[in-house]
Amino acid sequence: MIIDKLYESVKDKGLVCVGLDTSYDYVPGWIMNSSSNLEDAILEYNYRIIDATYDAAACFKVQIAYYEAMGTAGISAYKKTLDYLKSKNCIVIADIKRGDIAKTAEMYAKAHFTGDFECDFITLNPYMGKDSIEPYMGYVKNKEKGLFVLAKTSNKGSKDFQYLKTDDGDKVYKKVIDMLKNLGMDCMGKYGYSSVGAVVGCTELEEAENIINELQNVFLLIPGYGAQGGGALNVAPLIRNNNGGIVNSSRAVLLNYRKYEDGEKRFDYYAREEVLRMRDEFNNMKFIRP
Amino acid sequence: MIIDKLYESVKDKGLVCVGLDTSYDYVPGWIMNSSSNLEDAILEYNYRIIDATYDAAACFKVQIAYYEAMGTAGISAYKKTLDYLKSKNCIVIADIKRGDIAKTAEMYAKAHFTGDFECDFITLNPYMGKDSIEPYMGYVKNKEKGLFVLAKTSNKGSKDFQYLKTDDGDKVYKKVIDMLKNLGMDCMGKYGYSSVGAVVGCTELEEAENIINELQNVFLLIPGYGAQGGGALNVAPLIRNNNGGIVNSSRAVLLNYRKYEDGEKRFDYYAREEVLRMRDEFNNMKFIRP
Repeated sequence: MIIDKLYESVKDKGLVCVGLDTSYDYVPGWIMNSSSNLEDAILEYNYRIIDATYDAAACFKVQIAYYEAMGTAGISAYKKTLDYLKSKNCIVIADIKRGDIAKTAEMYAKAHFTGDFECDFITLNPYMGKDSIEPYMGYVKNKEKGLFVLAKTSNKGSKDFQYLKTDDGDKVYKKVIDMLKNLGMDCMGKYGYSSVGAVVGCTELEEAENIINELQNVFLLIPGYGAQGGGALNVAPLIRNNNGGIVNSSRAVLLNYRKYEDGEKRFDYYAREEVLRMRDEFNNMKFIRP
Repeated sequence: MIIDKLYESVKDKGLVCVGLDTSYDYVPGWIMNSSSNLEDAILEYNYRIIDATYDAAACFKVQIAYYEAMGTAGISAYKKTLDYLKSKNCIVIADIKRGDIAKTAEMYAKAHFTGDFECDFITLNPYMGKDSIEPYMGYVKNKEKGLFVLAKTSNKGSKDFQYLKTDDGDKVYKKVIDMLKNLGMDCMGKYGYSSVGAVVGCTELEEAENIINELQNVFLLIPGYGAQGGGALNVAPLIRNNNGGIVNSSRAVLLNYRKYEDGEKRFDYYAREEVLRMRDEFNNMKFIRP
């Protein structure tokens, strides 16, 4: 089960997931100038960030939107970034947030669990229901693949639909978590977590505390730390004994260099510094998830 | 407003939206054999389908999942298919069902409303809330672009979350439609519809009848006809005076040729036959949407 590999990686390397949301304007001028085109510049930047952080991060999350925005050249850079991560034996989460059904969902599964864009985990959107998740389960059960499905996200708008109270008193996101627990029963790993994880943001401390008792076997991908306002205090309720989740940071890692006068030249060094700082911060947390 | 262009296209050409969900195994053997690679075969197939149907279809919906499944070559075929549709002055809906927030959503907007993958409309998933739709609104208001946001889809699993009853008695999808009507007020076209449309499936007749009074200015992208089991009787409640919506058909159009002995050779002719048959069927409907 891929979730066991992720659990072990967290155990070895800590809770940090580095988000490669690489916007072209994050790339220092000297790399832009020494590259023959945008794709090469993005790749040079990504490779150096990966080299500087992969021994200190549990995994990497690549946000495909940033690459789609650069058209076919961006998609090529996306593929090559995944290839590089795989060559370094990194665990790769493709943050694609796809959501569709039937044959279309099978196509997304094929797209991101095989071939050019193959990765270990994908993120999915549950709005279309259980039959928008099931087409991926064959890969999860038999091909060492995993899912992180959006449940309670970290943005302001998460309240618009995810927090709606249903007529039996549960919120919508709670119903999503119930579905994920159900699907996860068929793909439990040896450390007590299934390969069907959930995206649960750390920006609403009170909400987090309301659901920690419900999370049991659910491994969490936790957004919202750093740029979005969540701190370690908000992360703590979602983590169990230094494991059971990963905390994503993208901009705070990628742009840490901008705080320093010599930052541009040493952007990869400063990315690493931020990963180490986060990791230490998390190591000193008190965990309350039962 | 792009929605006016779509309204006029429906008025001229009828209610059919041709779905280019082109799976490689739909392509007749003789095209496969005469093409030098899969990308060329897909393109030859798509170009012929487009040539045969564009005068009889209001618009085309290209399902990106099928192209993503073929890796970087598929993405190139996707781009070239969009280019061809634009060269024929067709209205193009990119069925991408993306859903993300903030800068990531801006990246998706840039990806699909400019550059290599530019189209007229995109489909979006609302699960993350209003701030997962707002980043596209600048393009909608100022750049002649439009949205179709998932509200009530046509699959079985649509009941899992979309149909959940909230504590004020409304279903979740009704809350989504309320949001879309609200966003649409800033981008109303001259025919009474806004450029923020909704995806509302035609598989649940009773549900459709419950919401027709709520749809007012909302233009509909209607899936579920044909292969998914919806018939013209199910479409009728969602259409107002032969307009106000488009009915997608993918497989029933693309694979109509398989019903005929000479189908492979004349797959494009039979695709057109199915489009004409649907169009006539819709023209004879009795509309009940007020």
